[in-house]
Amino acid sequence: MALHPFDQAVALQPLGEPSLGRWRGVPSKAYWNMVGPYGGISAAIALQGLLQHPALLGEPVACTFNYPVALNEQPFELLLRPVRTNRATQHWTLEMTQPDDAGDVGVVLTGTVLTGKRRPTWGQVDHAMPQVPMPQDVEQEQRVPGVEWVNRYEFRTLEGPVPVAWPGEGEHSRSRVWLRDKPVRSLDFSSLLAMSDFFYPRVWLRRGLRVPAGTVSMTTYFHTDADALRLIGDDYLLGQAQAQAFYKGFFDQTAQLWSRQGHLLATSQQVMYFKD
Amino acid sequence: MALHPFDQAVALQPLGEPSLGRWRGVPSKAYWNMVGPYGGISAAIALQGLLQHPALLGEPVACTFNYPVALNEQPFELLLRPVRTNRATQHWTLEMTQPDDAGDVGVVLTGTVLTGKRRPTWGQVDHAMPQVPMPQDVEQEQRVPGVEWVNRYEFRTLEGPVPVAWPGEGEHSRSRVWLRDKPVRSLDFSSLLAMSDFFYPRVWLRRGLRVPAGTVSMTTYFHTDADALRLIGDDYLLGQAQAQAFYKGFFDQTAQLWSRQGHLLATSQQVMYFKD
Repeated sequence: MALHPFDQAVALQPLGEPSLGRWRGVPSKAYWNMVGPYGGISAAIALQGLLQHPALLGEPVACTFNYPVALNEQPFELLLRPVRTNRATQHWTLEMTQPDDAGDVGVVLTGTVLTGKRRPTWGQVDHAMPQVPMPQDVEQEQRVPGVEWVNRYEFRTLEGPVPVAWPGEGEHSRSRVWLRDKPVRSLDFSSLLAMSDFFYPRVWLRRGLRVPAGTVSMTTYFHTDADALRLIGDDYLLGQAQAQAFYKGFFDQTAQLWSRQGHLLATSQQVMYFKD
Repeated sequence: MALHPFDQAVALQPLGEPSLGRWRGVPSKAYWNMVGPYGGISAAIALQGLLQHPALLGEPVACTFNYPVALNEQPFELLLRPVRTNRATQHWTLEMTQPDDAGDVGVVLTGTVLTGKRRPTWGQVDHAMPQVPMPQDVEQEQRVPGVEWVNRYEFRTLEGPVPVAWPGEGEHSRSRVWLRDKPVRSLDFSSLLAMSDFFYPRVWLRRGLRVPAGTVSMTTYFHTDADALRLIGDDYLLGQAQAQAFYKGFFDQTAQLWSRQGHLLATSQQVMYFKD
């Protein structure tokens, strides 16, 4: 049976002993963005390497990824380092390198990850899921021409779709959408992480203008664990994204991903550059 | 004239040429928390080192700090590395090390910083400042016994003060507060960064229970530049913090800091561990 496109995209080969934390991979054309691979898949690749490290303690809690430059189609190397292991938490740094067109190897992704042992405690969702129609009652969106990675998701937009006209003004920066992998795939940390980068640049919606924009840094927190993710299977998640501020060439966007049952599985924020 | 306590706290001595990005400092007792220094001041120290690096391009846009372990009172070393410099952006990694009680040197802070050249563009605040009474109309809070760093801020709480009783239940997780340095000090990137960590653990407010809790990772985005900060001077900022989810030993809290004029200067999120 052929691997799911997501599993193909995050597949890594160890360079030496897995405990060295060195991996080799090849960017997947199935998740290609306008220039280089979708940022969410690059983050997922890095997390996938971490989850296979023999020294891993606990499960992912917080991760930050920085995107210095778009990856090209060449193989890349991923280096993961556990810099501090405590009793219940572990801190990681990571770096992805790749040769550029001239053959010079440079850093194409940096990041830090916090993992931790989960234990039963009091819990609470304070950012409640908005009341919205169920997925089956919302029309499924068609593919976005020219952006291959979008075809890897099935999504049904409730609010703030990608504009079809560009009037040069907008009313707000919020999108709400049901989404899941296409073809369907059981949710795990790596695919949840990739989904936290699903949302197109808020500047397009807020401004009603399709200006050049791209993610330069993203931070995602997990409020779930492997057992809870298994129970969700391949069901839809409700995603929401919204900007807070646009200022002199950069803006931020926050994101939330809830299960259909209203569990807030992941919260995220990212900063994007944009041009006028 | 004596240096302001904040400037004392973030003072660094170069270890070799500044271009090496190696600095030495000593934690300040003036910003001591319950165990070790206030996380906001450790972040500010790291940023201060970066701002003095001769290779710096542009101004800080996004930064993430991870707190593997509380610092002790010993001198620390800070290492800053510009891993990629583009035309308009620059990506940094940083690490702070310190000997523990047994003399073994370990990593006590990791982080990444994105700096960028700001340029005039269209701009917008999408997360509007709430309408609240002005600082002069709100009572100034007194010191919190036993937590020294809180005395370095003058603050006036509008909503969600630190509970004085612990009934074991709460209604929400939101705090709003006017704050500035005490004694007053002109705002800059480092002090703004420190203020983004001002807000006490949301679990105390939401749960009405003072359980052990501490920051393990924080990400702050700047939506301002040096020129705009200079205009604010030593005026109050309006700060807001709120949790999104509490789950099995960890929770997040988002924060916003506005100028009195309603400019959203910084947005932040952090993840804290908590015990039951």
